[in-house]
Amino acid sequence: MPFTERTPRVVAARALTRRQGRDKARRFLAEGAQAIREALAFGEVHELFTTATAAARNADLLTQATAAGVPVSEITDKAATALSETVTPQGLVAVCSLVDQPLESALAARPPLVAVLVGVSDPGNAGTVTRVADAAGAGAVLFAGDTVDPHNGKCVRSSTGSVFHLPIARSRDTATVLTACRTAGLRLVAADGHASLDLDAATDSGSLAVPTAWVFGSEAHGLSAEVLSLVDDVVKVPLHGRAESLNLATAAAVCLYASARALRGV
Amino acid sequence: MPFTERTPRVVAARALTRRQGRDKARRFLAEGAQAIREALAFGEVHELFTTATAAARNADLLTQATAAGVPVSEITDKAATALSETVTPQGLVAVCSLVDQPLESALAARPPLVAVLVGVSDPGNAGTVTRVADAAGAGAVLFAGDTVDPHNGKCVRSSTGSVFHLPIARSRDTATVLTACRTAGLRLVAADGHASLDLDAATDSGSLAVPTAWVFGSEAHGLSAEVLSLVDDVVKVPLHGRAESLNLATAAAVCLYASARALRGV
Repeated sequence: MPFTERTPRVVAARALTRRQGRDKARRFLAEGAQAIREALAFGEVHELFTTATAAARNADLLTQATAAGVPVSEITDKAATALSETVTPQGLVAVCSLVDQPLESALAARPPLVAVLVGVSDPGNAGTVTRVADAAGAGAVLFAGDTVDPHNGKCVRSSTGSVFHLPIARSRDTATVLTACRTAGLRLVAADGHASLDLDAATDSGSLAVPTAWVFGSEAHGLSAEVLSLVDDVVKVPLHGRAESLNLATAAAVCLYASARALRGV
Repeated sequence: MPFTERTPRVVAARALTRRQGRDKARRFLAEGAQAIREALAFGEVHELFTTATAAARNADLLTQATAAGVPVSEITDKAATALSETVTPQGLVAVCSLVDQPLESALAARPPLVAVLVGVSDPGNAGTVTRVADAAGAGAVLFAGDTVDPHNGKCVRSSTGSVFHLPIARSRDTATVLTACRTAGLRLVAADGHASLDLDAATDSGSLAVPTAWVFGSEAHGLSAEVLSLVDDVVKVPLHGRAESLNLATAAAVCLYASARALRGV
């Protein structure tokens, strides 16, 4: 008999769709084949729930999970809906250990490129920037201030597995995060559309060729004057046409790739 | 008395929420204050519908529209919902002339940087790439093959006005679009995650320092072998970490900004 939405283990997992539940249990849900594949490879998976339909479609993945000692249980479609944070549940959900670690440990390897998100409340944006940071070779992503929980379902999904790929840390105290970056030998550069210095000039000056933590604010509100006062440079992506701005993920992509290239000594 | 969803002019405008209706009338709807501001500045607006609430909130914009000779009519909330393509109607909709033009005219100024979308069916992606192309200083965006209509409500919205900022053309025939680019003196470079040449190497070789049309495919299917056979170079954005790919808009941002910088002779 498949588990229903009233089966205690499903009820316990459902609590992980809320931040409070996740923080209490130190676990979260990864939904869909792609996220679960990355969780099995790079995270810690405690159990896996699947509908009969999803099981038929993802036989290899379930074999892999079972081989790794992960209990796999069948759930009803209604239970899958209860565990899903999407409009179209994929019928495949894994209970995973939270991926975040203390700031100091996330920065222990002294990575030359780090992304810091400050007050980014949109989970899709936070996840997409995490994916871009991973792609650009960043060694950590730090969620600071009122930034969304990296374990939010939409954030996990839009990161397409990247939340499992690189060290993640979070702290409500933005100043603490920035200080930790400095201690780890990182130069702090904030991205801000109102900056006077543009990215080309920053690149030309050679200032991006040193270990850098890029600080990104929310699309709606940007970075506060207080945060801007704590960084070494404030840089804008140049707008050559008539667009008034870039969205957060595309701006972060241009900045992080400019740093990746500068750090490679090109 | 405000117009209702049954008032003939509202019924006529509602037909513009479908591609067929737009193509027949050669008009489309721009929704929300930002899009309408750009439409008034850079497009051709035929009339404007507003709810009483939206009118109170956007008095300046309505004054500007009236001064420009655009008829402004009040509509009911229900009519606003009928004219909206979003979950949360903004209560402010303008009927505009289509922005696309023939390929040859879009390329007549021989722009040094152009974005070509091939088979991009997601309107949010197409709009975001249009915004990025505008920001990077591209001189045209070309919608080729089965790419979404640039006048689709979600595309217009995610372009944040950029569909009004730079020449847009569309053609079902991708080969025709690529030939037009060549005739306009553009080198054709396709972005493809499976390419052997990476963007840093392409930049270093100097090949991006000439007029370039970047060709982007859909996130799900990429570009067909046929399209890849028609371009001069196929280039991938390097993936330095564990991410398997970038999303379309972030990849396009990195490529277009690399070209913008190369074209400026840096």
